[in-house]
Amino acid sequence: MLNSMSRWVGKQVRLKLNAWRVVEGVLQGYDSYLNLLLVEAMEVKNEGNQRINIGTCFVRGNNISVIETLDSTKI
Amino acid sequence: MLNSMSRWVGKQVRLKLNAWRVVEGVLQGYDSYLNLLLVEAMEVKNEGNQRINIGTCFVRGNNISVIETLDSTKI
Amino acid sequence: MLNSMSRWVGKQVRLKLNAWRVVEGVLQGYDSYLNLLLVEAMEVKNEGNQRINIGTCFVRGNNISVIETLDSTKI
Amino acid sequence: MLNSMSRWVGKQVRLKLNAWRVVEGVLQGYDSYLNLLLVEAMEVKNEGNQRINIGTCFVRGNNISVIETLDSTKI
Amino acid sequence: MLNSMSRWVGKQVRLKLNAWRVVEGVLQGYDSYLNLLLVEAMEVKNEGNQRINIGTCFVRGNNISVIETLDSTKI
Amino acid sequence: MLNSMSRWVGKQVRLKLNAWRVVEGVLQGYDSYLNLLLVEAMEVKNEGNQRINIGTCFVRGNNISVIETLDSTKI
Repeated sequence: MLNSMSRWVGKQVRLKLNAWRVVEGVLQGYDSYLNLLLVEAMEVKNEGNQRINIGTCFVRGNNISVIETLDSTKI
Repeated sequence: MLNSMSRWVGKQVRLKLNAWRVVEGVLQGYDSYLNLLLVEAMEVKNEGNQRINIGTCFVRGNNISVIETLDSTKI
Repeated sequence: MLNSMSRWVGKQVRLKLNAWRVVEGVLQGYDSYLNLLLVEAMEVKNEGNQRINIGTCFVRGNNISVIETLDSTKI
Repeated sequence: MLNSMSRWVGKQVRLKLNAWRVVEGVLQGYDSYLNLLLVEAMEVKNEGNQRINIGTCFVRGNNISVIETLDSTKI
Repeated sequence: MLNSMSRWVGKQVRLKLNAWRVVEGVLQGYDSYLNLLLVEAMEVKNEGNQRINIGTCFVRGNNISVIETLDSTKI
Repeated sequence: MLNSMSRWVGKQVRLKLNAWRVVEGVLQGYDSYLNLLLVEAMEVKNEGNQRINIGTCFVRGNNISVIETLDSTKI
């Protein structure tokens, strides 16, 4: 199943973390624990009305609930 | 026990995540960590009165509490 | 220790999940991560005054805090 | 370090779980994930003023924060 | 990295657990999962104004956020 | 992916932990579980208006959500 994720590398993704916090960015890489490396990452608050720049960041897999792609890429 | 899950692939499932958030969708795949791949996924809020389209998404196993099938499929 | 769990298969159990949510059902199976498969499962709310039918479901081990048996089975 | 735990088998322990819920009971067994089997278990609420009988139960290791012994056993 | 921890054995440490609860004590031992064994442990509440004796206890690694040393030991 | 982290050793990083608590410090080391060793660490509160000195500390990987670098280092 994880290899499906490879098609999302280089694409814009939206992550729902613990307490449903939202981080968006371009997926640069991932490992077998679903730890993700994002570039051009943003924290998205208040239903999208507020966007805080993060830049390059690691996001720890076990605190991610949902990973969505913002591209129309099919898996 | 995990192979029981194979009978739910292609079927509609409902996930209760941390803080009892609810996501429904068609189960496309899963791995040994119970990470799930859903298509036609929806976030379900306010006891089902509000449904937010997600589309294709990964749901991280360790933040899932309960996985129910919305089909009458027996295991 | 896990093999003690085998005596509870087929019996009624009560699970306390994260945030002390309560799910009861008949234990159908389990794996080495204490992921459980329940049938005839119910979510129990308001100190037992409200019971919501779930049916067959997987309950993810790492979000379970306490597993009790509602039978008088000794381990 | 885990073998220090063996001296607490058969003794009264107090567990602080997620959200600092308190469960006390006699430690019957444990495994390498610090999943515990308790007998004569009680949920302790309101600073000890309320005690709810659980009986025999499994307590999942990853939702335990602190394990104390109520005996004066030294490790 | 974990072997840096060995220099803190026998020293006073402060642990920030889930929900930022604070436990202080002398580090007696640890394992590869960063499960810790403390002696002379105290729960510290209200910014240090309230200290509750715990004594000897295990602290489960995955519910620890931060481990600080209260000695000036350098790593 | 983890080896990308090596370029951040010796650099200033910002960690978002569970409940979005913020700790900043110089990354001294890390292991395969993304447990981190920081020096000159600070807890940052109230949107950066309050900074509490921690010094040398371990930060447990599984309670970290996001790791950002405060340097302009590219990965």
